[in-house]
Amino acid sequence: MATQGKVITCKAAVAYEANKPLVIEDVEVAPPQAGEVRVQILFTALCHTDAYTWSGKDPEGLFPCILGHEAAGIVESVGEGVTEVQPGDHVIPCYQAECKECKFCKSGKTNLCGKIRGATGFGVMMSDRKSRFSVRGTPIYHFMGTSTFSQYTVVHDVSVAKIDPKAPLEKVCLLGCGVPTGLGAVWNTAKVEAGSSVAIFGLGTVGLAVAEGAKAAGASRIIGVDIDNRKLDRAKRFGVTEFVNPKEHEKPIQQVLVEMTDGGVDYSFECIGNVSIMRAALECCHKGWGTSVIVGVAASGQEMATRPFQLVTGRVWKGTAFGGFKSRSQVPQLVDKYLKKEIKIDEYITHNLTLEEINKAFELLHGGDCLRCVLKV
Amino acid sequence: MATQGKVITCKAAVAYEANKPLVIEDVEVAPPQAGEVRVQILFTALCHTDAYTWSGKDPEGLFPCILGHEAAGIVESVGEGVTEVQPGDHVIPCYQAECKECKFCKSGKTNLCGKIRGATGFGVMMSDRKSRFSVRGTPIYHFMGTSTFSQYTVVHDVSVAKIDPKAPLEKVCLLGCGVPTGLGAVWNTAKVEAGSSVAIFGLGTVGLAVAEGAKAAGASRIIGVDIDNRKLDRAKRFGVTEFVNPKEHEKPIQQVLVEMTDGGVDYSFECIGNVSIMRAALECCHKGWGTSVIVGVAASGQEMATRPFQLVTGRVWKGTAFGGFKSRSQVPQLVDKYLKKEIKIDEYITHNLTLEEINKAFELLHGGDCLRCVLKV
Repeated sequence: MATQGKVITCKAAVAYEANKPLVIEDVEVAPPQAGEVRVQILFTALCHTDAYTWSGKDPEGLFPCILGHEAAGIVESVGEGVTEVQPGDHVIPCYQAECKECKFCKSGKTNLCGKIRGATGFGVMMSDRKSRFSVRGTPIYHFMGTSTFSQYTVVHDVSVAKIDPKAPLEKVCLLGCGVPTGLGAVWNTAKVEAGSSVAIFGLGTVGLAVAEGAKAAGASRIIGVDIDNRKLDRAKRFGVTEFVNPKEHEKPIQQVLVEMTDGGVDYSFECIGNVSIMRAALECCHKGWGTSVIVGVAASGQEMATRPFQLVTGRVWKGTAFGGFKSRSQVPQLVDKYLKKEIKIDEYITHNLTLEEINKAFELLHGGDCLRCVLKV
Repeated sequence: MATQGKVITCKAAVAYEANKPLVIEDVEVAPPQAGEVRVQILFTALCHTDAYTWSGKDPEGLFPCILGHEAAGIVESVGEGVTEVQPGDHVIPCYQAECKECKFCKSGKTNLCGKIRGATGFGVMMSDRKSRFSVRGTPIYHFMGTSTFSQYTVVHDVSVAKIDPKAPLEKVCLLGCGVPTGLGAVWNTAKVEAGSSVAIFGLGTVGLAVAEGAKAAGASRIIGVDIDNRKLDRAKRFGVTEFVNPKEHEKPIQQVLVEMTDGGVDYSFECIGNVSIMRAALECCHKGWGTSVIVGVAASGQEMATRPFQLVTGRVWKGTAFGGFKSRSQVPQLVDKYLKKEIKIDEYITHNLTLEEINKAFELLHGGDCLRCVLKV
């Protein structure tokens, strides 16, 4: 490759300050060091976590940075010692790493890998604790170990999943975050069984993926809960069988659901990130066995609460990150499922724009119509 | 039987008012109606739930009542349609019923039975919603469907476990509540595996039974947490391998435990009923898989809280009631385990008194030395 070992200058969307429009800049991307991979990003989607950090509400957010974590691309070059991918491989960057060596990866109990989070949490690469991005000599922080709002990015080798090159990158980029999070919450974290009743709070991309996962698992009732009635028709196509709008009820929503389901649902999923809704999601579960899974990410510092009696009488409160999927091992399997038409992706893509239009894409994300907006990078 | 079908007048300890000494009275105990069983109580222990209701802090507490729910005795007579026990059977009254017919019992997912709680929660029997106890014509409420602080009591047939008549009733009365709650929290609710690390908050009877259960499950580290250093030696005999006194640390106790265990324990158990400790118990669990079980009963209306991030990063929050044991099916099995010396009981009995001395027994319960005080009734 002509670019291998050299700095690449390319376009990227830089977030210089919280809540200020991103700026399309010529960014210099340093070559990958040992254990690193430089990826040409071809398509990236936007997710609410990008918007959250961009908003300034994330106390761990670092600026200036390059956001983005739901994308697909092609390996441009690899650093020393990288064996599992090589230039030309089609890949999905994974904000949740999988090193296969640490205590977490070896536990068999979790998909959370501990190897690089001490660096990615600080917006730098592990080997030298520096960024590979700069603009006119000023370093720009990485984000979530992925920084996909750039034509080229550098990631750790434990953060990149090699996928079938036949997969359309403009679609499977969604397998970097939202869709696996929802599917996995059902399949891996809750382990919903056939015949179960399910309540889903929030019918955005993640909530709809929960519905899709629940339908695939054979759930008999899939109750969508959202304050926007316009979401009902779309939700039905993803498997939702009933719709409840809390604004149309005077009673607390948990009570409405308990009454609808003769005592509560078997499983509930909070896909919003609102601590009051997390409580409602727990409390609408059936005594004795109901399990509630927190999927949404609450704003920093917020706390959720309930009476211990809710748990003592048999409810279980859990959470999930990336749906419990082991990223490098299982994202390629999800790509294969898509190619076999076993899971949806196209249906989540409501808008297509280019990287230059990223500020417009952020606006779309906050409207009720947009599920995923995919940017051609 | 000479007493069958007749009112029995016998001694009982009546709680006339919250927080006032119990009064030993001549109580009239009506014959069992259809589906009911009259039991001669021979031995009863005191548990903190009795003390909680007696204190007046339980908003559902009804007075006057006959407290007590950890006991053993012999069936005196049975009402119409009762087939599973007969006069002369040795039994343990079970505050957690098991009807084997309701949605809960048939679910295979919980030990909570729904059949009679609509009556027992109101201190009455199900058939006529009346009490079987009276003193000089005034009805006295039942308590937890058991009311064992009486020489005779009437319970629903779904609330009585028939046990091996070879078992010493002065010992196995403890299998009515505290010991199964602790053992079952480990075996049924948490399902602790060999090699696990465990933290136990509160080293009373239930906490020590958790330690015993964890040792039997093969836990490698069993860390007892209590503010009373005098409890250490005794705790070691039940399986505790390390002892931490939160008062001897400036850091929050969850942080102390996380540091002691390279990231947190695999399982934790809250055996106090303190909502702040419930939070600590969750937060001392290991990221990715740590499971915390609430065993203690918090005061009414209190709420526990944490940041959702604790669950999103893989911790699980659960609770248990009667350790998840199905009462009528499994209490007899626990009796058999005791007879085979597979579980301890004698070691939890620190005091023996008579029913007449019950007020002294309540005082003992609040001292650190007393685990269980068994009363000869």
